[in-house]
Amino acid sequence: MRQIDLEKIRKDTPGVGTSAHLLACGSALMPQCVVNAIVEHTQLEAQIGGYEAHAKEVDKLDRVYHSVARHLGAKTTEIALMENATVAWCHAFYALPLKLGSRILTCEAEYAANYVAFLQRAKRDNLTIDVIPSDASGALDLDALQTMMDEDVGLIAITWIPTNGGLVNPAADVGKIANAHGVPYLLDACQAAGQKRIDVAELGCDFLSATGRKFLRGPRGTGFLYVKESWLSSLEPAMIDHFGAPWVARDHYELREDARRFETWENSYALRAGLGVAMDYADQIGIDLIENRVTLLADKARTLLSDLPTVNLKDLGQDKCGIVSFSIADKDPRQIVQQMAKSGFAIGASQASSTRLDSERRNLPTMLRIAPHYYNSEDEIERAVARLGKLL
Amino acid sequence: MRQIDLEKIRKDTPGVGTSAHLLACGSALMPQCVVNAIVEHTQLEAQIGGYEAHAKEVDKLDRVYHSVARHLGAKTTEIALMENATVAWCHAFYALPLKLGSRILTCEAEYAANYVAFLQRAKRDNLTIDVIPSDASGALDLDALQTMMDEDVGLIAITWIPTNGGLVNPAADVGKIANAHGVPYLLDACQAAGQKRIDVAELGCDFLSATGRKFLRGPRGTGFLYVKESWLSSLEPAMIDHFGAPWVARDHYELREDARRFETWENSYALRAGLGVAMDYADQIGIDLIENRVTLLADKARTLLSDLPTVNLKDLGQDKCGIVSFSIADKDPRQIVQQMAKSGFAIGASQASSTRLDSERRNLPTMLRIAPHYYNSEDEIERAVARLGKLL
Repeated sequence: MRQIDLEKIRKDTPGVGTSAHLLACGSALMPQCVVNAIVEHTQLEAQIGGYEAHAKEVDKLDRVYHSVARHLGAKTTEIALMENATVAWCHAFYALPLKLGSRILTCEAEYAANYVAFLQRAKRDNLTIDVIPSDASGALDLDALQTMMDEDVGLIAITWIPTNGGLVNPAADVGKIANAHGVPYLLDACQAAGQKRIDVAELGCDFLSATGRKFLRGPRGTGFLYVKESWLSSLEPAMIDHFGAPWVARDHYELREDARRFETWENSYALRAGLGVAMDYADQIGIDLIENRVTLLADKARTLLSDLPTVNLKDLGQDKCGIVSFSIADKDPRQIVQQMAKSGFAIGASQASSTRLDSERRNLPTMLRIAPHYYNSEDEIERAVARLGKLL
Repeated sequence: MRQIDLEKIRKDTPGVGTSAHLLACGSALMPQCVVNAIVEHTQLEAQIGGYEAHAKEVDKLDRVYHSVARHLGAKTTEIALMENATVAWCHAFYALPLKLGSRILTCEAEYAANYVAFLQRAKRDNLTIDVIPSDASGALDLDALQTMMDEDVGLIAITWIPTNGGLVNPAADVGKIANAHGVPYLLDACQAAGQKRIDVAELGCDFLSATGRKFLRGPRGTGFLYVKESWLSSLEPAMIDHFGAPWVARDHYELREDARRFETWENSYALRAGLGVAMDYADQIGIDLIENRVTLLADKARTLLSDLPTVNLKDLGQDKCGIVSFSIADKDPRQIVQQMAKSGFAIGASQASSTRLDSERRNLPTMLRIAPHYYNSEDEIERAVARLGKLL
């Protein structure tokens, strides 16, 4: 199998010279081409003005929609560019008409951002939130989901790859069940984008949200929403401005026909330019090669960590992702993160409240996370785990 | 009276060497210090990672709230930093509880972004939108507003300085009426911020929204919302994530106590850093000096334009702002903008649908806009108008 060109990739990545950055699940290192796109557009705005810079670069900026769409196997008209993944997710979730008393089905590893929104709408619209149990491996249990389906289910909304727990939920299988029952399916792909192939047709999702800053290596403050075409004839955003809903007559606005009805007029074109370059960069390398390498490095980290006496690996599922989660007996995880940072290793900690259902079920403390990306070397993993071993 | 140091200011502004940029009402030229703040934070993110850069610069980034609050005469806890002005405005508007059947009062020059949101909520919550007539000068008629007040008025929401029309609405007088009747007052200060002194106590507003990119000379993709402290005990955002509403127990979230409950977890810290620097830069020069100079330059433009035979000035109000609006008989405004751009003058055009009520009432075409900022020279105004004269 073809390998990635690690030497070139590391040369493209200014941050690899600073530390062993092992937190792609937080905010990965941007390649220089992404930085350049942001800086160049910002400087152009300063030189000729913000509107004038947009007008000059409009073709390039429009191509960002193509880049995102191509990466997802979607149509350009199905893509909205958003400030971040939760804004993208919220715009889909809060727009969805859900009958009073209907049920939202979600997973045990659902992310806090989404769950509080469920709670808000549950209160507002008298909805029930039902949690799909996990199977023995810790992944969403498809058989259980099948038995939970009834005519009151108004939405299935799950996280594909949770923020911790190493898990990859069977997102495409969930899609098959959702589609078979004609139930809308909202997929949070925040941690999946950039480490896994995304094909919205295969996933069977109606909506998919993700961020630019994690495994996609794009700028902070970027995200996107996929909205399946069939929804565009009916879905009214929960909030609008005159970009998504032009004011066509005194008492009338008309929603845009494409997914950009969820956008507002103003945004950072510098960041958008950076997002487009990040998507193209990932696709030039090839998402399958990326996924293979991320899996290889994460597995290596798991194997090495399992040899450390007081480390408890907390990863779930048969099929594991690039996020390695663990706790260390009798150690303050925040302190470990700081000590590792001082030694030149960027790792992270994830609070129990980020995935409260899972944390309560498994009685999890704040967990440590190591999330290598394809630009990391095997040596970095080895050194990071060795350093951790010395701290214990 | 003290004058601004034009030479220094122009030296701080890379764009003044490129063209005579006369479109501060669109997106003004950033000073170099704002560009530097964006670029430096972006490069830091690329060097050490996005989360790590935030942790390193957290004090500086927290001070952005102080800068915005100081500029508005508000408390730090009353400020939310948002992606743009309409998102800020929408978060206030859509959160406000309005009784079924209640009335929204707005002005004739209200901006399209806000008006379509009125229309959406009017449909959703069976509200009435009532437009406060203008007085003989074209400004919001305070006497008319007085007579319109009754117990059904649920909100007064107006634009302080409209996107065109040169007008400054009597925002503080409207505040007095709103407060006397105990009616919430939402003020769109998008075009005011950076060209006028803003004092939320004097304005009497409950909510104020603005953008970074216009007269404040900040980055595109930035905005902010002021929420008066007394609202923070009761106001629930229309959409939430776990930043504004931490997930504190399985079935319970708890809204943040400050205005940041309207924010989401992720955003661009590079742009925020730029916004903070822009606010500080404006305050170092002094907003009163800025306002004086903007008025002087805009008045000069009005005087010179009024000497051109086919130019029709369209500005309203006694008290005029830095946006000079006009049409030219028998000329396509878009073409004029392009021809001016080719000659090194950035001016703009504003569609009738941006302020549809005013446009229909006055039968306005697409209007041309010249909006000088304090960094412009008098010579640039003279040359721009002379060039326009030659195009006619």
